[in-house]
Amino acid sequence: MVITTELRTDPISGRMVAVDTGAFKRRDDFELERAPLDDAASQCPFCEGHESSAGPEILAWREGGPANVPGWSVRVIPNRNPMLRIEGGMEVRTDGVFESRDGLGAHEVIVETPIHDQPLHALEPDRLWRVFWAWRARMQDLRRDRRFVSTVIFKNHGRASGARLDHAHSQVIAFPDIPPALAEKLRGAARHRVKNNRCIYCDLTARELADSRRIVVDADTMLALAPFAARVPFETWVMPRDHSARFEDASDAALEALATMFKSIMARIDWALEQPAYNLVLHTAPIAPEADASFHWHLEILPRVTRYSGLEWGSGVHRNPVAPEEAAQVLRDATVGA
Amino acid sequence: MVITTELRTDPISGRMVAVDTGAFKRRDDFELERAPLDDAASQCPFCEGHESSAGPEILAWREGGPANVPGWSVRVIPNRNPMLRIEGGMEVRTDGVFESRDGLGAHEVIVETPIHDQPLHALEPDRLWRVFWAWRARMQDLRRDRRFVSTVIFKNHGRASGARLDHAHSQVIAFPDIPPALAEKLRGAARHRVKNNRCIYCDLTARELADSRRIVVDADTMLALAPFAARVPFETWVMPRDHSARFEDASDAALEALATMFKSIMARIDWALEQPAYNLVLHTAPIAPEADASFHWHLEILPRVTRYSGLEWGSGVHRNPVAPEEAAQVLRDATVGA
Repeated sequence: MVITTELRTDPISGRMVAVDTGAFKRRDDFELERAPLDDAASQCPFCEGHESSAGPEILAWREGGPANVPGWSVRVIPNRNPMLRIEGGMEVRTDGVFESRDGLGAHEVIVETPIHDQPLHALEPDRLWRVFWAWRARMQDLRRDRRFVSTVIFKNHGRASGARLDHAHSQVIAFPDIPPALAEKLRGAARHRVKNNRCIYCDLTARELADSRRIVVDADTMLALAPFAARVPFETWVMPRDHSARFEDASDAALEALATMFKSIMARIDWALEQPAYNLVLHTAPIAPEADASFHWHLEILPRVTRYSGLEWGSGVHRNPVAPEEAAQVLRDATVGA
Repeated sequence: MVITTELRTDPISGRMVAVDTGAFKRRDDFELERAPLDDAASQCPFCEGHESSAGPEILAWREGGPANVPGWSVRVIPNRNPMLRIEGGMEVRTDGVFESRDGLGAHEVIVETPIHDQPLHALEPDRLWRVFWAWRARMQDLRRDRRFVSTVIFKNHGRASGARLDHAHSQVIAFPDIPPALAEKLRGAARHRVKNNRCIYCDLTARELADSRRIVVDADTMLALAPFAARVPFETWVMPRDHSARFEDASDAALEALATMFKSIMARIDWALEQPAYNLVLHTAPIAPEADASFHWHLEILPRVTRYSGLEWGSGVHRNPVAPEEAAQVLRDATVGA
């Protein structure tokens, strides 16, 4: 089969991706590094029993009992090496052509399990639910601080994803503005809303369901699909089928559906790519005019089996060696227990 | 020393970087992977004697003799797995919200040395000169194809940079449009030109020379500096001191100065980061109104000791754990032979 390249534009963000069409690549075309980093559990600040070295908890799921001791299943703590901090101001310092400001915001860590070597996606759905519950609770709380305009949750799993610690954790950052990756989506969504008076994610979902080639799993209220302009092999988006701008407003049932879906998708990805490193990104609507009508929360799953290279730095075009239609088919057909 | 984070805006592209200020990090904070990939030289299509397996040469530096046989020091060949191809059109296919087009363009490989395990930056300046000569010649030639609007040269060295082959090589891509990473710089340069009637790179250079904290090496006609909003630790830009929009118009003497400078900077980076993987990006002015007056060619050197993580995917903000002022000082003070 001849491999050719198609330049695709993501309909929401406008970013460009060069998608290689043609047959599914051999697995040994990818950088399949083993995910574990092999930290010593004895030194791990996130392990149960080491609560004092991780710092005072902001939130935890506990069956009763005091804070900052064992007995939790999910635990939120301050990031010890935060990118953004609660102290500082928003003033822009201008010095000729140079502009800078303080790193104002919040940066917290969600420890997803008390057990050192248990990956997030190995948790049973009811335990996964508690992680999503913590994400939602932190987003709700951070939104109350009127200095913050947007929150982003992300996760690094495995060395190739940028993870520095083995123990499963995700991170939430609250920004006093809209960071570039969210802003480009918001602009695309706003353009679509002005033109069509509808949410672009809702239109996209309807379109993908009608076509079906890029659908990975179609559950009752939750949908998983391979995006048209996927940046990396097997990139998958999970989102509610009905319009829902904010993850922090998601119902308990929606978190349940997300947990079931996430578990199923990760089992398929683990099968297809032999337990790859991956990143997660959760985008929810920022506090911005029209965002509630035009934005739609979604979880991006980004397996990390290719590298960010000179091509990406130099052109800003991502190159994806696996067409999303191929990836969706592989994931649909995956042999998984669940 | 307290580490705080400063959000800096790149004055040209507008991209945001979170720079950690404070003491220089310990080397073991970085991912210092050994660069070699350990391909077998016997199988390498880029080695002298394997010319037929690499494909017919587009250009080579030879001391006489026929093409496609040993006896060259630099050799340019088609990329066997190109992102863009000469065949195809520019028509945009629209399908509802989805837009795509053919991968039209050119994608070539510059084999930088006939010797398998000789890195680019190990070449003596007169051999390095021939590589830059090949870059210039290919840019000049590709510019003659009226379908192409911009060319970008990049290089991946070492596994962490995205390199798939050990044998030193760089790549040139000609685009029928202006790719996003170049377009964001061009926009910033055009804004500055409208406002100040000057080239932003020239203004930046004058400013950095007056300040001196971010200057790495100040040679007669060529300058190396740590950019204000450096995206990765020890990011370094090399550019001519006098206004010069296009690398393809650079004089032989300018290529000589670039070779001497590149050799010196890489020796310093190798000393500071223990021979890291790195990417190179060469940006020259595209064919665009005002580009000759507002743009200024430059070579970006990007050591790859940190990972692209969920933070970058989710926010679009790069996090750099080493302030460029610190990096510039370390590189200035580096103990190097040259």
